[in-house]
Amino acid sequence: MLEQRDLQSFEENLPFWKRVTDQERQVLIDGTIRFTHAKGDIVHEDRNKCTGLLLVVTGQLRVYIISETGKEITLYRLFDRDVCILSASCLIRNITFDVHVMAERETTMLRIATDAYQQVGKSNPHVQDFTNQLVSSRFSDVMWVVEQVVFMSLDRRIAMHLLEQAAIAGEDSLSITHEAIARDLGTAREVVTRMLSRFQDDRLVSLSRGGITLVDRDALTALT
Amino acid sequence: MLEQRDLQSFEENLPFWKRVTDQERQVLIDGTIRFTHAKGDIVHEDRNKCTGLLLVVTGQLRVYIISETGKEITLYRLFDRDVCILSASCLIRNITFDVHVMAERETTMLRIATDAYQQVGKSNPHVQDFTNQLVSSRFSDVMWVVEQVVFMSLDRRIAMHLLEQAAIAGEDSLSITHEAIARDLGTAREVVTRMLSRFQDDRLVSLSRGGITLVDRDALTALT
Repeated sequence: MLEQRDLQSFEENLPFWKRVTDQERQVLIDGTIRFTHAKGDIVHEDRNKCTGLLLVVTGQLRVYIISETGKEITLYRLFDRDVCILSASCLIRNITFDVHVMAERETTMLRIATDAYQQVGKSNPHVQDFTNQLVSSRFSDVMWVVEQVVFMSLDRRIAMHLLEQAAIAGEDSLSITHEAIARDLGTAREVVTRMLSRFQDDRLVSLSRGGITLVDRDALTALT
Repeated sequence: MLEQRDLQSFEENLPFWKRVTDQERQVLIDGTIRFTHAKGDIVHEDRNKCTGLLLVVTGQLRVYIISETGKEITLYRLFDRDVCILSASCLIRNITFDVHVMAERETTMLRIATDAYQQVGKSNPHVQDFTNQLVSSRFSDVMWVVEQVVFMSLDRRIAMHLLEQAAIAGEDSLSITHEAIARDLGTAREVVTRMLSRFQDDRLVSLSRGGITLVDRDALTALT
């Protein structure tokens, strides 16, 4: 059962909400559930399951792809008020790839079921518009990843990543593993460890068992 | 001035062509020119110029991105009857990246001007649908590139590339340079040269000044 605050989330974050009929709005509400995933949970795994449209109320989602051998690369992250469209990619013709979505913190979401969203999208062009704009945004996010992977050296990418993670965490002491950085950047753990050791030798970061602390933000920024 | 065969190209390759009004069709026709680019010509360079929608009549286009330092990676190629949408990306909200388009052979195209296409797209949802489906297709193409770059070893990528180029050329003797392969795959020429020398030592290909000949297709295929 949705609460008043959930309807407010819709109103504030779905630009089409004020442009659907009462009947369409009811279809969407009836097709929505609110649920919470613990940190580390897989939220969406396979596009054939077509989880639905996910509106993040609070929390953090990582959207990534994974190879046959288990190698990963992060495509983008979603935060409070963001909407995940690729978890409903079965709705979008010509999207032929699968993504995975994991909760990086405890995350509360509103999930609009695929059939409810599809039903309203068919009758209401504003909903269709919203879908298409989300697809284009994610396409742009992925192009940014392509540019980083192909055009940037790994020291630069790791420096950018550390600064970005510090901005997300709101502090300079990060509880992240070398493995997690490797998964984000689509590289091997050994390569990350080697680069971080070099950063430590250069007094840019300090490494501990529990994580990584940024020591010289200016020098890290200069690398990017 | 368009000819009868151009209208036939539209009818055969634009799925919305039969679902626009006579007036809309006239707007599109008035906004279209047929033109030919020589091999090697840059067809589209900057999304701000918003070249327009390009329908390839005959020829071959390479769509790629280029870094500040001039490094390139090919996103996809377009052949006869394909439509290039990213050359009209100014029409698509939330597409924030630029691509370049080059003619790899002499290429004849029909170009629908951005404003004509936009005008008809606003009034006709089938045109909008077509745009969105093209965007999703290209998004899927780019995800394929991401998977290749991040998950596949370079020997595998080069083997796949040689087989693909042989399929496009229709023969096993390819007039391509190591530099061109490097640009396609987003890597350095030296790296390609080293791998091709290894392929030659293993009797998979034979290298000459003019190009590369596939010698053992089965072994190349086994690599992929």
